[in-house]
Amino acid sequence: QCDLTGWWENELGSKMRVDAVDSQGNFTGEYHTAVSSAQKPIEPSPLIGSQHLDEDGQCTFGFVVNWKFSDSTAVFTGQCFAGDGGEEVLQSTWLLREKVDSLPSDWKATR
Amino acid sequence: QCDLTGWWENELGSKMRVDAVDSQGNFTGEYHTAVSSAQKPIEPSPLIGSQHLDEDGQCTFGFVVNWKFSDSTAVFTGQCFAGDGGEEVLQSTWLLREKVDSLPSDWKATR
Amino acid sequence: QCDLTGWWENELGSKMRVDAVDSQGNFTGEYHTAVSSAQKPIEPSPLIGSQHLDEDGQCTFGFVVNWKFSDSTAVFTGQCFAGDGGEEVLQSTWLLREKVDSLPSDWKATR
Amino acid sequence: QCDLTGWWENELGSKMRVDAVDSQGNFTGEYHTAVSSAQKPIEPSPLIGSQHLDEDGQCTFGFVVNWKFSDSTAVFTGQCFAGDGGEEVLQSTWLLREKVDSLPSDWKATR
Repeated sequence: QCDLTGWWENELGSKMRVDAVDSQGNFTGEYHTAVSSAQKPIEPSPLIGSQHLDEDGQCTFGFVVNWKFSDSTAVFTGQCFAGDGGEEVLQSTWLLREKVDSLPSDWKATR
Repeated sequence: QCDLTGWWENELGSKMRVDAVDSQGNFTGEYHTAVSSAQKPIEPSPLIGSQHLDEDGQCTFGFVVNWKFSDSTAVFTGQCFAGDGGEEVLQSTWLLREKVDSLPSDWKATR
Repeated sequence: QCDLTGWWENELGSKMRVDAVDSQGNFTGEYHTAVSSAQKPIEPSPLIGSQHLDEDGQCTFGFVVNWKFSDSTAVFTGQCFAGDGGEEVLQSTWLLREKVDSLPSDWKATR
Repeated sequence: QCDLTGWWENELGSKMRVDAVDSQGNFTGEYHTAVSSAQKPIEPSPLIGSQHLDEDGQCTFGFVVNWKFSDSTAVFTGQCFAGDGGEEVLQSTWLLREKVDSLPSDWKATR
């Protein structure tokens, strides 16, 4: 059973804390990024998300990070895998949306 | 000022309802997709997300859809643009994460 | 039958010329982008690619643009759709890889 | 100096051979994928691509794989990094375009 609640760290050194997951699968937490493309200093930023509550527990999930230090938003989506030894691994991908001035710049707004 | 609250429709005919945005920028709502890669019939599915509350109101946002009819999760991120005539347009991109059986299948899980 | 040879224009105003497609499906051409995230002035840039040669002609294809005015590379992949009236439409998506200094910056190199 | 010519293997066990890179940066080769979402047996498939020829040699590149066993096309783009010990590492991302029947299915065609 994969429970997202707790602390997670990725291969870049970014960390996140997921608080209690409610009965709908919704959760809040905080993301501490190790990397940034913004000018201002990095700050921990709130996250909000949702996970599937499947019978086999290898759930997919998604969450949104509302960056405190830049006019940008990141979304992550992935799946929790339970290893043989009981350890849990999250595999996820992300999109980073940066604010642009106007519609003609929209094409380059997302990494 | 772009206010996400209300109904939105995209070019594929999918519709979403965003409920009141709270003082942190968080919101809930419901996504009515017009398209699906799942076997089961489509059902409206809950969404949860967050938007920036910028001074100029051309905010970036993100949200997560927890599909009721498939073990999948979608994330969307984009920006609200206010047109000259006062109309608002959302530009967004998305990732769809489908559940896979095991880690070796992870490479193909995201569209 | 979708034949890629010729001039194409996208919704941003970028244009490309595809030269003759050979018997393997390979082709060369030139991409005239209307938008850029680079500092230097835009220049037409060479492209090289490949398409499937299917019986029904609604082929998938891919090509690479080697930008002349920046240390970046773009890849496009899509499909050619033949409309009822005989007109052809290309639907494609892309990735833009920008050069970064070192591995720790790799995470942000692709839009 | 990163030279793409030769054999490369990724973390999934897929291998590729890049033949001689010409003076424009163009190259051909063959991709031996270890994973597939197609029904038919995997076959080695031709690739064609292009790399930047920068002074510092940490070039970006892109290539297209025209799958022999499915009506799909993959594009890869990335950068070559030269390590301290002289070893070379390729970092890349990809898109896989699968053929769909008609325009309304276009939204789900790309992983």
